[in-house]
Amino acid sequence: MTSFPHDEVLDQLRWRYAVKKFDTSRKIPADAWVKLEEALILSPSSYGLQPWKFFVVNDRGIREKLLPHSWGQRQIVDASHLVVFAVKADVGPADAERLVARSAEVRGIHPSVLDTYKNMMIGSLTRQTPEHVREWMTRQVFIAHGVFLTTAAMMGIDACPMEGFVAAQYDEILGLPAKGYRAVVIATAGYRAVDDANATLAKVRFRKSEIIETI
Amino acid sequence: MTSFPHDEVLDQLRWRYAVKKFDTSRKIPADAWVKLEEALILSPSSYGLQPWKFFVVNDRGIREKLLPHSWGQRQIVDASHLVVFAVKADVGPADAERLVARSAEVRGIHPSVLDTYKNMMIGSLTRQTPEHVREWMTRQVFIAHGVFLTTAAMMGIDACPMEGFVAAQYDEILGLPAKGYRAVVIATAGYRAVDDANATLAKVRFRKSEIIETI
Repeated sequence: MTSFPHDEVLDQLRWRYAVKKFDTSRKIPADAWVKLEEALILSPSSYGLQPWKFFVVNDRGIREKLLPHSWGQRQIVDASHLVVFAVKADVGPADAERLVARSAEVRGIHPSVLDTYKNMMIGSLTRQTPEHVREWMTRQVFIAHGVFLTTAAMMGIDACPMEGFVAAQYDEILGLPAKGYRAVVIATAGYRAVDDANATLAKVRFRKSEIIETI
Repeated sequence: MTSFPHDEVLDQLRWRYAVKKFDTSRKIPADAWVKLEEALILSPSSYGLQPWKFFVVNDRGIREKLLPHSWGQRQIVDASHLVVFAVKADVGPADAERLVARSAEVRGIHPSVLDTYKNMMIGSLTRQTPEHVREWMTRQVFIAHGVFLTTAAMMGIDACPMEGFVAAQYDEILGLPAKGYRAVVIATAGYRAVDDANATLAKVRFRKSEIIETI
């Protein structure tokens, strides 16, 4: 397995930033988008539970409806793509069963081989309060968010992570509760406008000594 | 700006997996590790608040002490590196002030230019309950987790994301509360052992139709 030159990987991370103004004339090519979706699918999660669904909102009318619930941030309508990262509601033993069934199918083994794994998952999911499980699962969605942003950067695709939106309104407009999901974070993706002032701002990070501590 | 061939980026994501058994004889070279730390520093966060610290535990004695609080998972001591992703406790207005001061310094502007931004942050941080702010900040740490895992994969470095550990014990052993942090998730990194059975298992993901929905 090859990998990428480390300096070039860092260059891509430095190149990325939270795009404020997208080039409205540029769309992410379909074949590139399919690969970004694949990155989302490949995201790791606790126990491999994948307690999420990624809603890709291409409908322009719906994006216009979401705009006023997004602090008016134009990326919602101007970006090539909008992804709403949603967490599965009420994750419980049935989800462990579903994952084990899928694992057995993918690996060509009998589900009973995975009984220990299944029982461990069910224990973790039922030992804690529903609120705790909900937050535990929500955190997983943020791993996928990090995977998405990093992968996009590696692919040379711009993105903007966004938490400034009214989740309850997104849920209602997209009908997520009826589907069993709740919106937790969003990302817009596409290509930066040549005149996006944010593109040239120096990236602000605290000093390494404040962020990393070696023990 | 160049970027990487999309198929090769996906290859790296498929290559990665949660390493069960690390090669104890292989260390991540210092120059590569510095770049992975840089990726952590570059991770995006809500408002750019960076409400985190990443504790890199190199002390073998401490790692032995952490092992019994990690469900006995040998990666804790066998991996080349162990990172404890911690969230800053009690994030509030002072953190907004600190970020604005740092932004002004990095960008060579007067802090007052950023008053609107500062007041927006302070509003968000004080309008909500401390519990809500704590969880909001904790979620950010998971973005950094996703960035770390993805960047490691791009660099050809193996890793294992781990939530199976007793955070309170980690906090105590590492003295995190006194430093103003709490452990939320960990990652071990290094190189897979040639006989790690997990390396050859088929990756289990639900069908695309269950994970992605286009609207």
